[in-house]
Amino acid sequence: MNQINLDVLMEISKIIYRTVHPFLGSREGGKAVGIGFGGDLTRFIDQIAEKAVVEYLKEKGLSCILIGEEGGVQKIGENPEEYLIVDAVDGTTNAVRGINFSSASLAAASKDSLEDVEAAAVINLFDGELYVAEKDKGARLDGKKITTSKASELKNSIVSIDVSSTPERLNRVIPVMKTARRVRSLGAASLEICHVASGALDAYVDLRGKIRTLDFAAAMLILRESGGVFSLLDTDEQMEIPLTELRRFSIVATASERLYSQIVSLI
Amino acid sequence: MNQINLDVLMEISKIIYRTVHPFLGSREGGKAVGIGFGGDLTRFIDQIAEKAVVEYLKEKGLSCILIGEEGGVQKIGENPEEYLIVDAVDGTTNAVRGINFSSASLAAASKDSLEDVEAAAVINLFDGELYVAEKDKGARLDGKKITTSKASELKNSIVSIDVSSTPERLNRVIPVMKTARRVRSLGAASLEICHVASGALDAYVDLRGKIRTLDFAAAMLILRESGGVFSLLDTDEQMEIPLTELRRFSIVATASERLYSQIVSLI
Repeated sequence: MNQINLDVLMEISKIIYRTVHPFLGSREGGKAVGIGFGGDLTRFIDQIAEKAVVEYLKEKGLSCILIGEEGGVQKIGENPEEYLIVDAVDGTTNAVRGINFSSASLAAASKDSLEDVEAAAVINLFDGELYVAEKDKGARLDGKKITTSKASELKNSIVSIDVSSTPERLNRVIPVMKTARRVRSLGAASLEICHVASGALDAYVDLRGKIRTLDFAAAMLILRESGGVFSLLDTDEQMEIPLTELRRFSIVATASERLYSQIVSLI
Repeated sequence: MNQINLDVLMEISKIIYRTVHPFLGSREGGKAVGIGFGGDLTRFIDQIAEKAVVEYLKEKGLSCILIGEEGGVQKIGENPEEYLIVDAVDGTTNAVRGINFSSASLAAASKDSLEDVEAAAVINLFDGELYVAEKDKGARLDGKKITTSKASELKNSIVSIDVSSTPERLNRVIPVMKTARRVRSLGAASLEICHVASGALDAYVDLRGKIRTLDFAAAMLILRESGGVFSLLDTDEQMEIPLTELRRFSIVATASERLYSQIVSLI
C-alpha cells in the first residue's frame, strides 16, 4: 500500500491552502526570497507553502522523494520509494497581484515517471475548491464526479492560451486564437487544465516550451480521468518522462480527441 | 439631491449578487431566453438579474431612466430625471461556464452623457467584492481606498487583452502582447478595469470595437478615481457620449499616463 495516497494529497492541499490564503494579494506574500530549483524567482508564499509540505511529511513520518519548485529533489524520511511532486503555488503572479486564480498542484507516483502518477490533487488557493483523481477511478471536484464538456468544434469552444513572455512563439497560436469562439488567458496552468476537466473550459494551450512536469503532473491525471486529452508537443516522449528532471514542455489539453486534432492541425 | 446615489447602487449590487450567485456555473443559469437590446443573446441569469433591479426600483419608488442590456432604455417611476445604466451580468460566458470571473456593473448619471456619471459600483458575482466610486471622491474596494499600481513600463506590466471572436482585429494588439511582461484575458471588462483600478492588473485593452457604454460606464469612473487612465479609441468623442445610445467602442485602460502612451504607440 502506498504511503502517499489520495487522502494524504488532500490533507496537504488543505494545509497549503490554509498557509497561503491569508497572503493572497499582499505585498508580504510577493516578497522575493531567492531563486528556486527550476530557475524561477521564489517568493515568500512559494517558500512558506513548500515548507509547510515538508513539515507535514516529517511530522507524519511519511517517506518520499519530494520534487518541488523551491527545494528541487529531496529525500524525506527513511528509504523513500514513492514520489511526491508539488507545485505549492501555481500562478504566483496572480496570487501576489490579487487576481483570484491560482492553485497548488500535488501528484503521487510509485516510480519516477509520468505514467506512474497514481493520485493527484489541485486546490484553488482562493476558494479552496479541490480537484482530485486516482488512476482508473475517475476525477472529482469537491467530491462530485466531473467530466469534460466533450466540446468537439474549436469554433464553438472556449480556449485558454498562455502567451506571456514568449513573443517568438506567439505566431504559432494565432490561428487557434482566431478560430476559437472565446479566448481566455487565466495564468495558472494546473487550474486551467482542471477547468478543462470540469467543463468550464474546452481546451488549454501552452506552446511556450516553459511548462514543467511539476506544473502539469497532477492536472494531467485529473484531465485524463475526466475523459479529456492531454499531450506534450514537440517531443517523441510522453508518459516515460522522469518526474525528477525538471524539463520544460509545450502542451495541449482538450475536452475531446476531435478538438485535440483540430487544434494540433492549426499549430 | 440625487435619488440614485451610491448607497442605492451598492444596495442594487448586493441584490444582483444574491440573485445571480446561486446560478453561477449551472446549466439553468445559462439557458437562452431571448435577444437583448444590444443584440446579444440573453440568458436566464441576465434576465433574472435585470428583473431584480426593476423590482427594487419600483418597490422603493425610485424614478430613473434605466438603461440595461436586456430591457434597453426604460422609464421607471414618475418624471424620471436621472439615469441608471446597468450591466447586470458582465462576463456571462464565464458565469455560465463556471469560470470565477464575472461582475455586475452600475452607474448613475445626472444627465444623458458619460461625463455626467457621478457614482459607480461593480460587484464581483463570485465573491461579492464591491468596487465603488463617486466623482472627485476617490475609489474604494470593500470600503478601502484603492489606487492603481502606477506601472509605467509595458515590459514590466501585466495586461489583460480581449481578443475573442474578432480575428480581423487581432493583428493590432499583437505588439502589446509581445511587449507586456504578462498577458491575461479574463473575460469580464468591467471587472478587469476595476482590477486596473485596484492594482491587480496594470492595463486592460479591448480593441474589438464591441464594448458598450453599459459595459464600462461604471468601471471608467472607478478607474479614473483611483488615478488610472481610461480612453475610447478610434473616435473624437469621449465624455460627451450619450448613455442611452448603445454604441460600441474600443478602449484602453491603464494604471498611468505613461503606460497609456506606450500602449497607444504600439496599436
